[in-house]
Formats: sequence, structure tokens, C-alpha cells
Amino acid sequence: MDATRVEIIGIGAGDPDHVTVGAVAAMTRADVFFFLDKPDAAGELSDLRQVILDAHVPAGGYRLARVQDPQRVRTEAGYGEAVADWRKRRADACERLIADNLAPGETGAFLVWGDPSLYDSIISVVDDIRARGNLEFEVLVHPGISSVSALAARCHTTLNQVGGAVQVTTGRRLEQAWPDGVDDVVVMLDARDAYLAYANDPDIHIHWGAYVGTADEIIVSGPLSEVAEQIRDTREKARQDKGWIMDTYLLRRKRSSVD
Amino acid sequence: MDATRVEIIGIGAGDPDHVTVGAVAAMTRADVFFFLDKPDAAGELSDLRQVILDAHVPAGGYRLARVQDPQRVRTEAGYGEAVADWRKRRADACERLIADNLAPGETGAFLVWGDPSLYDSIISVVDDIRARGNLEFEVLVHPGISSVSALAARCHTTLNQVGGAVQVTTGRRLEQAWPDGVDDVVVMLDARDAYLAYANDPDIHIHWGAYVGTADEIIVSGPLSEVAEQIRDTREKARQDKGWIMDTYLLRRKRSSVD
Ligand SMILES: C[S@@+](CC[C@H](N)C(=O)[O-])C[C@H]1O[C@@H](n2cnc3c(N)ncnc32)[C@H](O)[C@@H]1O
Ligand SMILES: C[S@@+](CC[C@H](N)C(=O)[O-])C[C@H]1O[C@@H](n2cnc3c(N)ncnc32)[C@H](O)[C@@H]1O
Repeated sequence: MDATRVEIIGIGAGDPDHVTVGAVAAMTRADVFFFLDKPDAAGELSDLRQVILDAHVPAGGYRLARVQDPQRVRTEAGYGEAVADWRKRRADACERLIADNLAPGETGAFLVWGDPSLYDSIISVVDDIRARGNLEFEVLVHPGISSVSALAARCHTTLNQVGGAVQVTTGRRLEQAWPDGVDDVVVMLDARDAYLAYANDPDIHIHWGAYVGTADEIIVSGPLSEVAEQIRDTREKARQDKGWIMDTYLLRRKRSSVD
Repeated sequence: MDATRVEIIGIGAGDPDHVTVGAVAAMTRADVFFFLDKPDAAGELSDLRQVILDAHVPAGGYRLARVQDPQRVRTEAGYGEAVADWRKRRADACERLIADNLAPGETGAFLVWGDPSLYDSIISVVDDIRARGNLEFEVLVHPGISSVSALAARCHTTLNQVGGAVQVTTGRRLEQAWPDGVDDVVVMLDARDAYLAYANDPDIHIHWGAYVGTADEIIVSGPLSEVAEQIRDTREKARQDKGWIMDTYLLRRKRSSVD
């Protein structure tokens, strides 16, 4: 009998053309897809995954198994504790999902938005499940085009300047401070327009993209001091129109030093 | 007549399965491929690009146009000057390559190793050529799976810790200092075993991969203090056996602070 397998498949951040040949092959051979559904508007992301799946496995022939993605509880408990608890509940939910839906010798797959290596928890959830030792399966991870790569390609830009470093970070961190020692900063998960804090710096350029690779794609590039308000307004309107937004941006500061 | 077009196609870092569906379509429709050949051993990279091309466009039917990639001259002149001069000579060489080999209405393509957005100059070279205004063409960039994503997938790891930042940098920079403010560091272009400087730190874990995605792939993961020497020896041997090496690694420091 074939090995029982769980595949974690990066499917790119919206453009069906960004799916790799290996991911298409993996989607085609999977017996069952596991969907972790987020509550409320973000539910559209599950639909987007389905769009990618339909584009590449039009014949169907697979099963779908869904579960509500446990949410992080904002409690009095410490941050570390809350995250550990959340991790445990996600592992519980996914372990059950796999146990109930994957027969020995079958292949099950998680479709991960973008690249599984960036701001996604499936790899560690599956790791946790294997560490418990209740279920036996092999794991295969397929890299995907992240929204970062998609944004850079769309804007015809590199992420680093010659020989320079680039930091990928969150809106929460950027709001606290510009990262030390780097002139190029990629920001994800920004729910607070953190770039606004730098809108007075005349030496910063921004490449901003929302829904990159999808039909709703919006791109704004330019000196941050000139386009910051346009981005804020565009962002606000898009969030209202669609009910949710996913956007990523690259902030590039003119090289402070030649080194 | 169709627009004259230059496509910059990310082809992944070695695994033909990592090529995207969009890149395959682009390779299939290109009339001519532009190859910038590096001198000496690294010439094998051109061969590797040809392997990817053969895997996805077995029927051929395209033209190849090659040129020697101008090398950076290490002179007395300042670093900035040397880079500017190098950029100019690369733009000269590529402008001639395009002018001589791309007829109006045709599509020419550069195949870029990994993702064009990371430590690759083709995007800026093509930008420079367009800015000169001698040639008229449209540009399309296709993102690719970088060696960073490929390494992470192969090691079943994420690049960031929960809510944390990750910095992508060079061996040259890491050797100077551990980047400020980050616990996760991806290192490329390391010709000097820069990780050795941190081999005494008991809190650092490394995921190291050479020739990731190719038949020669080597992966070593573990606490840096325990595997640093093994990596150095493996690296040295591989470099001697093949004549060249390409490797990338992720250094992960136990989160210093919960924030
Ligand atoms: C939970 S993270 C997942 C990232 C994903 N693994 C990737 O590689 O792109 C969600 C964040 O990714 C970014 N993102 C995802 N898809 C995007 C898209 N199509 N356009 C712009 N940003 C996107 C946004 O910053 C969003 O807040
Ligand atoms: C000039 S940079 C090009 C990077 C490329 N654009 C990418 O996205 O991977 C060359 C560096 O990429 C890394 N690299 C490229 N291919 C690799 C592979 N198959 N395995 C490991 N590292 C690789 C190495 O760090 C190498 O020094």
C-alpha cells in the first residue's frame, strides 16, 4: 500500500498562473482537501482557494473536508499562553480532520495561500500533530509564489538593492519602528496603515499592492510622501467595498550608506 | 502586429516542478531566449536553465541568443562607481542582444534563476535599457520560486516565527554582525562561511541547503553549534567536487522576547 500522506501545497496569492507545475500535480493526485474555514468575511479566502483548485483540477473527483479554524482568544492570559492554547486547538481540530477523513494509503492536502513559509501556521500545526504520534503519515511541502514575489513581479522591482538586505515584517512591528539596519522593508498583515508613520520622509518609495494577482488587483507605486494618502483612501474604500482586504507593500529607502 | 515584448521569467532554483504554469506558458510562446553566460564554472548555471527549458518546452522551436555577462571589475575606483560602470556595461550588452535578435512583434525572454526579485539584476538592467529609449518593447515579469522558498519547503519550516520578522541578507553582511532586531535570518551569496561566527551560540538553529531542488541537493538541519563543522566540511567538499556551490540557509534564534 502507498504511504499515507499529507501534502501542504502553496498555491500562490491569487493568480492561477502562479501555481507551480508540482502543485498542480499534487492537487490532481490528492484524494481529499482539508479546508480550515475562517469565520466572517475572510471566508472569501476559502472561496479563492476553491477558484484555484477549480482552475487546475476542473474534473473534480476529490473529497472536501472542512472545519472551522479555531480563533485566537484575546484573554487576560499572557500572550505566550494564548498562542500556545491556540496552537493546541488548531492541532486538535486538524488532527480530527485528518483522522476522520484520510484513509490509510490516501493523500490529503492543505492548500496554503501564497507560500507556506510566510506567515502561515499549517507547517507547524502538522508538525505538532506528528509529534503527538497518534497518526502515521508522511509530509510533503510544496513552495508557492508568495504575495511578496507576486507584488515585486507586478511592480517590476527587486526586493533588495545591490548587495543589500531586505526585511519582511508585519504592520504591527513597522508601526513601532523602522527596522534597524535595512533600507528595504516588506510589510504584510498591516491592519493599521503603518506606512503612514513614514509619510513625511522624502527618501522613501513605496510599491503597494492589494489583491495582487486577482481580478481586483490594485497597485500604487511612488514616493511615499506623495502617495500615502491615496493608498490610505484606496485601502479604506476597498475594505468597505469587499468587506476585507489583503495587501502587501515594499518600502524602499534611498541607500543610506554605500557599503 | 503584436507588441514587441521582453519577458523576465522566474524559473525556480532547480526543481523543474517549481516552475509556475504561467512561466511554462511564457517559455512556450517566446520566440527567442536571451542567455547571459557567466565565465568559468558558474557556466553550469546556464546549463541548468537549459535543463528547465528542455523539461517544459521539449519541442524546442525557439532561438537562443547568448552573450558573455560583463563582470564587475574590482578596481581602485569607489564601490559605487564600479557598480554603476558594471550596470552600464550589462545594459549595453543586453541592449545589443535585444536589438540584434528580437524582431518587432516578437517576444524575447530572460530565464531568471529562482525569483527575479531576489539578488538578481535583470529587472534593473531591462529598466535601464527602457530608460535609454532606443528600443521599444513591453515588459512582463513572472515571479518564480526562490531558493529561499524551496529551502523552507524542503525543511518543513516557516521563515518567520509567529508574528516575527525575517531578514534576507548576504554572507558578507552576516559576517559583519547579526542583523539588529530579528531572530530569523536567511543568508544567500555566502562565499565565506559566515555562519561559523555564530557557532558558539547555543540558541541558534540552522536549516542549510545546497543545490536545493536539484539532483545534487544536500540538506543539513540542526542546532548550529552541533552541525556548523559538518556544514563547513560538506560545503568545502561539494565545492571541490562540482567546482561551484549554491547554498542558502536560515538561522533561527530562539525568540529573545515575547512581543
Ligand atoms: C496570513 S498572511 C499569508 C501570507 C501568504 N502565505 C503569502 O505567502 O503571501 C496574509 C497576508 O498576506 C498578504 N497577502 C496575501 N495575499 C495577498 C495578495 N493577493 N495581495 C496582497 N497581499 C496579499 C497580506 O499582507 C495579508 O495580510
Ligand atoms: C545571485 S543569487 C540568485 C537568487 C535567486 N534569484 C533566487 O531567488 O533564489 C544566487 C544565490 O542564490 C542562492 N541559491 C540559488 N539557487 C540555489 C539552490 N538551488 N540551492 C541553494 N541556494 C541557491 C545561493 O545563496 C546563491 O548564492
